[in-house]
Amino acid sequence: MATPRLVGVVGMGLIGGSLARRLVGRGTAVVAWNHRPHPYEQAERDGIRCVATLADLVEAAPDVIVLCNPLKAMPAILAELRPLLDAAPGITLTDVGSVKGMVRDQVEAAGLGERYVGAHPMAGNELSGWTAADPHLYDDALWAITVTDHTDFDRFSAVARLIVDGVGDRLIVLDDDTHDKAAAMISHMPHVVATALINELTDDANRNIAAALAAGSWRDMTRVALTDPDRTRAMVEEDAENVETLLRHMADRLTTVADLLHDERTGVNGDGEAVDVAAWTAMRAFFAEGQPFRDYKARQKAIAGRTASTETDSADMPRYEEREIGFSPDRWQSDLLASARRGEHIVAFEDAYKVRVQRRSAL
Amino acid sequence: MATPRLVGVVGMGLIGGSLARRLVGRGTAVVAWNHRPHPYEQAERDGIRCVATLADLVEAAPDVIVLCNPLKAMPAILAELRPLLDAAPGITLTDVGSVKGMVRDQVEAAGLGERYVGAHPMAGNELSGWTAADPHLYDDALWAITVTDHTDFDRFSAVARLIVDGVGDRLIVLDDDTHDKAAAMISHMPHVVATALINELTDDANRNIAAALAAGSWRDMTRVALTDPDRTRAMVEEDAENVETLLRHMADRLTTVADLLHDERTGVNGDGEAVDVAAWTAMRAFFAEGQPFRDYKARQKAIAGRTASTETDSADMPRYEEREIGFSPDRWQSDLLASARRGEHIVAFEDAYKVRVQRRSAL
Repeated sequence: MATPRLVGVVGMGLIGGSLARRLVGRGTAVVAWNHRPHPYEQAERDGIRCVATLADLVEAAPDVIVLCNPLKAMPAILAELRPLLDAAPGITLTDVGSVKGMVRDQVEAAGLGERYVGAHPMAGNELSGWTAADPHLYDDALWAITVTDHTDFDRFSAVARLIVDGVGDRLIVLDDDTHDKAAAMISHMPHVVATALINELTDDANRNIAAALAAGSWRDMTRVALTDPDRTRAMVEEDAENVETLLRHMADRLTTVADLLHDERTGVNGDGEAVDVAAWTAMRAFFAEGQPFRDYKARQKAIAGRTASTETDSADMPRYEEREIGFSPDRWQSDLLASARRGEHIVAFEDAYKVRVQRRSAL
Repeated sequence: MATPRLVGVVGMGLIGGSLARRLVGRGTAVVAWNHRPHPYEQAERDGIRCVATLADLVEAAPDVIVLCNPLKAMPAILAELRPLLDAAPGITLTDVGSVKGMVRDQVEAAGLGERYVGAHPMAGNELSGWTAADPHLYDDALWAITVTDHTDFDRFSAVARLIVDGVGDRLIVLDDDTHDKAAAMISHMPHVVATALINELTDDANRNIAAALAAGSWRDMTRVALTDPDRTRAMVEEDAENVETLLRHMADRLTTVADLLHDERTGVNGDGEAVDVAAWTAMRAFFAEGQPFRDYKARQKAIAGRTASTETDSADMPRYEEREIGFSPDRWQSDLLASARRGEHIVAFEDAYKVRVQRRSAL
């Protein structure tokens, strides 16, 4: 499968608008539709072909359509696309949603599962809408592509090459569940934790005193609790099962430390048994457990520093360990998932079943 | 009690060195001692009188001695000061430690409780040592002063005026327990939470994938877990009882949300009862509970923006509501604690029992 030459973009907000501008700027043609035409005049000047209806979009025969509409508009848009796409079997469908299992369920419910490949770019900022669209949003960005055992390899390949060649980004290949569990780990669950922190302060009789003493650590840990709580709640509920599991893990970890602090302080555990040095040893273990993550962040920082200090020859000096990996035509899903588990990010296709990877996120 | 004219500083690291330079720069004389004399040459050039021994420091007869040494050096320094101070009853003792109950216990164990007033400046950065000392560290900083029912008013007043007039900062007056509970709320407990987050990721079989997807929210919430884990552990253990209580509260909050996510998803609670809309209502309540804190942060941001946009006349335009409050000579501790609970920060002494306050931290 060659790199897509014409890409359809549905929804020209921050993510879709930036993507359309990025693709056109790098030489891939884009046909775009938005539920309201207000971005069209500027977009046409930027070289983006804008169309009045989804029927016109399908008519233009893009290789891939990228759904960049809000998640809540997804069912209506899929219902409208379904009959249009019946006459265009070659068009592959992808999206940019931040929860993959739910989107696939919607796509399959609309009878479009066979042609769908999930995608989620790690890109965004605090802005929204076409006026904030900026091709640099995708600079050095990572995308997660999600597939199932039934995903057609050519459709996967079309989306993957769109990302690597068209957008110029990196990618990892996951199944929906692995993606949604990881998103729960690094975003959805921590949003609940930050919200619980501001609730705990708000409930405190001495809350004005606590707020007075608050410094950088408190500000950093509660920043995400200040963003729109309804949007956060929706995000958490869309990934409910994974967030639930992680919240129970976190509650157990915090209770364990509370018990250790009690045991250290009193010399006796909850069952009245002397704890000797056991509590102190366990407490040291709690603070040592995350050391692989601290070491990983220190390595990342060192690489960033080395890149900054050798700017002139950075093209010749890869910042991360690179290698080529082949994968099986029959087990490409699991081969590429194993690569992602090793912390490798795909940066180029060498041929159909061989990619170049950088070891970017290995703890 | 007038503003101290000569201040003794013990320990010339980041906090003590910055304080000494700040005081001298604003016209208060400083005599300083450090356990090693390496800062002395530069400090003398900055106008700080440096002495070779703690005996010399006491001999210089400062109005107040500020203990800026590391907490672990406190018992030894207090033991050395005790006999020296017996001959100098007028000298008031204060400190800058971040946990107040433990320091007072040490001071009282050394037989110096009668002349002690606790203090904790909300100042610092990621640096340490004399070479990092910077008087601007104290720009617009808040100090907590901690007192007991037995604290001598004149000694309190000497320390308070040193902060307001000498350093040019704000202060609130607390008891040790209120201070240490608030510090547990906004710093010590959140450090444990951040550490639990990186432990949870480190334990995850897909940790490299989670690390790949991590963005701003994860980075902010785990930043404090990257700092020296041994120092964090010591800080948490010094405030063990308060941290234990708050960790149990947080565990309960996270478990509650986990239960609600379960109930929403299944329509049935843990006892097998239909939950109807109750779970959804409770989930909305969880995300609404911290709204007073969000509103407070929004007001702070608006005030900061207004100040920035009217820089030229900011001296005439108070950024925060100001008023004078009087307090009772007999109940000054509880009167000033009540003021702190209202979110008021003391910015000036009008006379012995009347202060000017700004309403800075009212949720």
